Amino acid sequence: MAALRFRIAMSLDGYGAGPSQSRENPLGIGGERLHDWVFPLAAWRAPHGLEGGEVNASTAVVEELLDNVGATIMGRNMFGGHPGPWDAKEPWNGWWGHNPPFHHPVFVLTRFPRPPLTLDGGTTFTFVTEGIQAALAAARTAARGQDVALAGGANAAQQYLNAGLVDEMVLHLVPILLGGGEAVFKGVTDLHGLQLVHTVAAPGVTHLKFARHA
Amino acid sequence: MAALRFRIAMSLDGYGAGPSQSRENPLGIGGERLHDWVFPLAAWRAPHGLEGGEVNASTAVVEELLDNVGATIMGRNMFGGHPGPWDAKEPWNGWWGHNPPFHHPVFVLTRFPRPPLTLDGGTTFTFVTEGIQAALAAARTAARGQDVALAGGANAAQQYLNAGLVDEMVLHLVPILLGGGEAVFKGVTDLHGLQLVHTVAAPGVTHLKFARHA
Repeated sequence: MAALRFRIAMSLDGYGAGPSQSRENPLGIGGERLHDWVFPLAAWRAPHGLEGGEVNASTAVVEELLDNVGATIMGRNMFGGHPGPWDAKEPWNGWWGHNPPFHHPVFVLTRFPRPPLTLDGGTTFTFVTEGIQAALAAARTAARGQDVALAGGANAAQQYLNAGLVDEMVLHLVPILLGGGEAVFKGVTDLHGLQLVHTVAAPGVTHLKFARHA
Repeated sequence: MAALRFRIAMSLDGYGAGPSQSRENPLGIGGERLHDWVFPLAAWRAPHGLEGGEVNASTAVVEELLDNVGATIMGRNMFGGHPGPWDAKEPWNGWWGHNPPFHHPVFVLTRFPRPPLTLDGGTTFTFVTEGIQAALAAARTAARGQDVALAGGANAAQQYLNAGLVDEMVLHLVPILLGGGEAVFKGVTDLHGLQLVHTVAAPGVTHLKFARHA
């Protein structure tokens, strides 16, 4: 069955976003530093329509993460915008502009119903109000045999981790302190069989890959 | 000048000890799992008077940590025992028995005065009530040109980190969740120039070495 794969960048003190997240500052104060290692990479720039970039020890990690993914699941906060029911007059359509980098079906966990949203480049957003199991089932069907990526944020990831539904986890450990923000493992006390299988040291980041013990 | 070197084992969720620490359970619930990687090592067993043991990728890390250390600083909670003034009738003499594994002068940060304690094997405990700067100065003198180890616990480490006095930091990142306990970087928001210089993947642990940028 298609694996559910979770990846997240995390500070040394365990945060996946800095303090004081807002629409203007979606990653929180200092949170953008969690992603400094990825932006220069050619492997990251290409799917975002950008030319050039670096090749280093992170390249194979990013290529593997992007490979064989047929659908994505994310939480409402990662999709972003305002809290509460969707604004029908000025709908929030995500952080990513008219051509988001997913290029496959994306399922957004929310308590508030909304019709599907189709943007350019093959990205569709489907809003799921029936919970994490329903979203995973829909994503698996949509992925047509490929894997499903769990994009975050922390709250959505914690729900899947606590349900034991995550098959693979990659932590991009960034050697900085954020001092507060969104704790990646808040309320999670059990990895449900996920074990460290691979570590990659790269410029500005250490990649830790976890998988279920065979 | 002799470097102040801090090392600590830390869970994925950032704890250096589990929840509910006590005299009976000094590492907190589950906290002993932070040290599972080190106990089998020959490099750890030898200074503890034990024969045999394993050699793996952690060996060089442990040897480097034990090398060229002439004195150790630790907080009151790591020395252990009861809170408040020292019990004169039944004095707490540390967790380590009559022959502690330090074999050099150890300086314990405390608010409560106590005469020095000399145990077997060259380990002396000196109780410092004048704060972290005084303890560091005394330890540097006692180290006679070698480095000073900052053994922990978290509170003592946080004071030295926040004062920018730590010259080298090694995190032994253990791929488990503790779900609570003593947060290694609680209240620390700045690494004061410490940068990741080296990563070593080993069985059950990933070692991250930080040093000041030259």
